[in-house]
Amino acid sequence: MTTSFDSTDNSTRTVDAWGVTALGEPLERMQITRRPLRGNDVRIRVDYSGICHSDIHNVRGDFGPRPLPLVPGHEIVGTVVGTGSEVSRFSVGDRVGVGCFSDSCGHCDACQADEEGYCENGTVMTYASENGYTDGEVTQGGYATEIVTRDSFVLRVPDSLDPAATAPLLCAGITTYSPLKHWGAGPGRRVAVVGMGGVGHVAVKIAVAMGAEVTVLSHSESKREEALRFGAVDLVSTADGSFAKTCSRRFDLILNTVSVDLDTASYMATLAFDGVMVQIGLPEQPLSVPVRMLTGQRRSLAGSLVGGIAETQEMLDFCAGHGVTAEIELIDAADVNDAYDRAVRSDVRYRFVIDAATI
Amino acid sequence: MTTSFDSTDNSTRTVDAWGVTALGEPLERMQITRRPLRGNDVRIRVDYSGICHSDIHNVRGDFGPRPLPLVPGHEIVGTVVGTGSEVSRFSVGDRVGVGCFSDSCGHCDACQADEEGYCENGTVMTYASENGYTDGEVTQGGYATEIVTRDSFVLRVPDSLDPAATAPLLCAGITTYSPLKHWGAGPGRRVAVVGMGGVGHVAVKIAVAMGAEVTVLSHSESKREEALRFGAVDLVSTADGSFAKTCSRRFDLILNTVSVDLDTASYMATLAFDGVMVQIGLPEQPLSVPVRMLTGQRRSLAGSLVGGIAETQEMLDFCAGHGVTAEIELIDAADVNDAYDRAVRSDVRYRFVIDAATI
Repeated sequence: MTTSFDSTDNSTRTVDAWGVTALGEPLERMQITRRPLRGNDVRIRVDYSGICHSDIHNVRGDFGPRPLPLVPGHEIVGTVVGTGSEVSRFSVGDRVGVGCFSDSCGHCDACQADEEGYCENGTVMTYASENGYTDGEVTQGGYATEIVTRDSFVLRVPDSLDPAATAPLLCAGITTYSPLKHWGAGPGRRVAVVGMGGVGHVAVKIAVAMGAEVTVLSHSESKREEALRFGAVDLVSTADGSFAKTCSRRFDLILNTVSVDLDTASYMATLAFDGVMVQIGLPEQPLSVPVRMLTGQRRSLAGSLVGGIAETQEMLDFCAGHGVTAEIELIDAADVNDAYDRAVRSDVRYRFVIDAATI
Repeated sequence: MTTSFDSTDNSTRTVDAWGVTALGEPLERMQITRRPLRGNDVRIRVDYSGICHSDIHNVRGDFGPRPLPLVPGHEIVGTVVGTGSEVSRFSVGDRVGVGCFSDSCGHCDACQADEEGYCENGTVMTYASENGYTDGEVTQGGYATEIVTRDSFVLRVPDSLDPAATAPLLCAGITTYSPLKHWGAGPGRRVAVVGMGGVGHVAVKIAVAMGAEVTVLSHSESKREEALRFGAVDLVSTADGSFAKTCSRRFDLILNTVSVDLDTASYMATLAFDGVMVQIGLPEQPLSVPVRMLTGQRRSLAGSLVGGIAETQEMLDFCAGHGVTAEIELIDAADVNDAYDRAVRSDVRYRFVIDAATI
């Protein structure tokens, strides 16, 4: 059982967590260790930990073998409870966050360009990832009472943001903010968000905050009212294929947040001249694109992972400035397996967050 | 038979041409009419007319039905022999060019952005196209002794450019210059050109002139020496799939000039972070793209048709400034059917141009 932390203590710490010892099994309470602080480490008491669909895929083995035991979680908001001797940017008591990754090589072109998520030598993910840049430690994620993270991968969470509703921004927020910014969402630009789930609803809010005219493309009409509440101008049903005609050449940017196989050509048809469709979701089948869908209006089909640390901080500050957080359902850790099942059924509006005090 | 033109004559003119009366038949000498000059028209004596692969596809019915008779040709260099009453930019004796299209609506967003080739209301192609913006006349192309074209679709051909070797620039030149410029080919950028045929060899020359580091990706080694002569730093054979590994993450921009079905994923693998692969060629099958090929390095797959009139003029001036023209084989009009067969076999280095004096 995790004991309260004395900031002068620098031993290896045994902490409570929820994870699996075999892929495909239910998550269970377990204990893991957190390393003694290195000079540039920050020890964080986890306050809230969001549940991302990729957690479910990892735990259930959809992404292949993973080191075990596996404690997921990469949407972490917490409080600094200790700092290494070289850390000057954070102090005990600071509200902070940790996102999808927690280390990278630091010297490749991508890292030098503050795009650590695309590190050419391999990004160290926040969980289930071996950190070859230090001692080969396998990372364990945020469904835990504490985490130790290198200071340059720790984000500052602005005080004005509700901490529980901010947790999902560490993944869903930056995953949408980054491509929206990169491809120029803003005033005068028509943005479509495909799918309004955990990631999509954050995309809508951020794109609206950026000043874009936002339309939701959804397989059902059921979320129309909420789409408008989030600031979208319209929700268009994609239940039949007619949206390809009714929205022909309408959008400058499409963010596809869903991971099921869609008819890419129909969506491309709704792009205006120079329009870009960006994949965030990861469908299993390759996308099929008729060439004339690209050439006819100089369209692009692109993909994006997650923004870098500097951009994640920028996103958090942007969200604080515009009052953007995720819509969440706060749960006790003991309900995590039920939450997984509900998330798979899309039975959540819009993101589950674990109250880490219940871990 | 075409008679020499009196610039004070403004009757309908009967001129010699080469074309077909049925798709799939050999081209034959025929006579067509050119309209009396409207106020904004320029009458051009055709001097040279390039043979583009799309001419062959049109004439052979590969692109579907076409109005008949059909006189192809959209790589036209000639001399002004008459001007309408409102024309002030051109005078008799000027060397000029006409490219892929010869009219557009003029008021849509694309036209207002000088992208007439993407006119939202329909671009009028230089041949086989009904001009709904005037009297519904069906356009006839450049395999003819004369052409009449609206002044704002006529290009000025710089004196320093060899006129015969410039003809292909009106299509192959602008089709490559436009995406190379749009996606930032220049110093410090690594550009790959897939295929070094009529279009590809011009792409290599222009990209080199822009200052990019250019690599040719070709199914055979046979053009290595010439690739280097055109300024490329390397030619990489794509005969087996190994180039995807040896060139992994190497290129910032790939221009795919070939129209056969390739393994798109292998080419995408050679793109660096933020790299873009642009389709110019038009393969029949949809492109198949694994999503992770896009997301993993924030890559894009795009397509491009042809640049607008202002950009075509810019391209001609750029080519004049850098001494860029196409490598051509000048032929008599009577050899056009043989040239078509040879072009289909890739038996030309690199573009056939008809000496219009032989029409």
